[in-house]
Amino acid sequence: MAKTTLSERLRLPDGPVDLTAHDSRATPGFGGSKKDQSAATAALAEVLSDQQERLYAAGVTGTDDRRVLVVLQGMDTSGKGGTIRRVAGMLDPQGVQVTSFKAPTPEELAHDFLWRIERSLPGAGKIGFFDRSHYEDVLIGKVRALADPDEIERRYDAIDAFERRLVDDGCIVLKCFLHITPDDQLRRLRARLDDPAKHWKYDPADVDERRLWPRYREAYEVVLERCSSSYAPWFVVPSGRKWYRNWAVGQLIGEHLEALGLTWPEARFDVDAERERLAATATV
Amino acid sequence: MAKTTLSERLRLPDGPVDLTAHDSRATPGFGGSKKDQSAATAALAEVLSDQQERLYAAGVTGTDDRRVLVVLQGMDTSGKGGTIRRVAGMLDPQGVQVTSFKAPTPEELAHDFLWRIERSLPGAGKIGFFDRSHYEDVLIGKVRALADPDEIERRYDAIDAFERRLVDDGCIVLKCFLHITPDDQLRRLRARLDDPAKHWKYDPADVDERRLWPRYREAYEVVLERCSSSYAPWFVVPSGRKWYRNWAVGQLIGEHLEALGLTWPEARFDVDAERERLAATATV
Repeated sequence: MAKTTLSERLRLPDGPVDLTAHDSRATPGFGGSKKDQSAATAALAEVLSDQQERLYAAGVTGTDDRRVLVVLQGMDTSGKGGTIRRVAGMLDPQGVQVTSFKAPTPEELAHDFLWRIERSLPGAGKIGFFDRSHYEDVLIGKVRALADPDEIERRYDAIDAFERRLVDDGCIVLKCFLHITPDDQLRRLRARLDDPAKHWKYDPADVDERRLWPRYREAYEVVLERCSSSYAPWFVVPSGRKWYRNWAVGQLIGEHLEALGLTWPEARFDVDAERERLAATATV
Repeated sequence: MAKTTLSERLRLPDGPVDLTAHDSRATPGFGGSKKDQSAATAALAEVLSDQQERLYAAGVTGTDDRRVLVVLQGMDTSGKGGTIRRVAGMLDPQGVQVTSFKAPTPEELAHDFLWRIERSLPGAGKIGFFDRSHYEDVLIGKVRALADPDEIERRYDAIDAFERRLVDDGCIVLKCFLHITPDDQLRRLRARLDDPAKHWKYDPADVDERRLWPRYREAYEVVLERCSSSYAPWFVVPSGRKWYRNWAVGQLIGEHLEALGLTWPEARFDVDAERERLAATATV
């Protein structure tokens, strides 16, 4: 059967994952080339704007408590922040919640790794974006041996149970792995060094992490294989081309919102009676 | 001396305030008509994007702890939410914080009226938007007699002291009164009744508040007169035309950011040495 939606195309199939077999510069599901992107973005912006307002209206009026969590993961420079900027920029900021997870604070470390995640979840009607997430605890946590292997093992299952609960409770969980190659990263880090306006984004520690690329790739492959479920699958988003990456993440959100079939909340008042009450205040 | 900036034009002069003398459909400082708005918006979006990134970079790197608070007040349908949608939509969501203040919760009522405000202030490098604010406590608080007159009196001075502290601590406080007339509101409430997709935005209580228009206007006039200071002035933004209102609020933010003269944070590493370290990881 032909894959008709982007969600179907980018959704990770079951089985072992080999990221080196994924093309970071592919543009699956995009019917055109870069020059068609502004038309595609404009069309997408309209869908997102309409769908988000329906979601928000349902949440505000209490008619539907569904919500969306977009988890963005990927190597340094894969564009987690840039994606949020472009995609969330198409949405009403009042219905958007962005959380960037850094190295845990002492208070956060005094709790289970999911504690700080729980506190940052979007409420009814909202779309939450996570720039990094609980997955860091089985990625850098594993590569840098910040936790015992037993604890890392425990976390895979804990993550699955956690995400299942979110989905059962009405949250759409969209996990996007922004896929780039070592070459993509090399070019982007060089660009940061070449532009004084980008120096603040460059951290010498990025090169130290880059040296561990194969180990991070392996850690991601395990995560993608073990933590992709029917209710909260991983999507592999080719991110070597920024314009495609931004469009694709927006499109994934749009498709999932449309699938909810959200209608406008019905009036809880008599429309004609209100027209009369309003008319009576024509001069105040 | 000619007023050259929009900030100078919209800034409330000292002295008694008569809102009936303000034209809600004026477009001061906008050199053109509605058809020029998309070019103006595009130009503004570039300024805001650049300036916000400088502010954010300074905040993240700790080189400058300045920040911006945009307070939006105005009658129902004046477009506080719409302004945030359009203006914050031009900004990077990671550097934006939106807070909508509703009727206080029991927990909030158990504290001083500024307690919940304090907890919602933007941090270094951020731009915060308040959809309603501490001013509700001297507006609906006064009109609906939710507090004693003595308490209302105390609040004007408390607000002034509070805002002075914010400004002294590096926060730019931009207070925008979105000015509409009773006729503007009538048209907008009717439009909500006429469109089923807008019914969820309509609340019969809005008509009850509308009946109190003259008392709200007087309460606003007192607020504008008593709480406009050299460090935290009020700006009266004609809001009968939505496109002008959105442009004007964005322009006010842009002018204030440009006045900070923000430069890019300097590199805290040896750029050439990093180029070499990076080159050594060309293949990983």
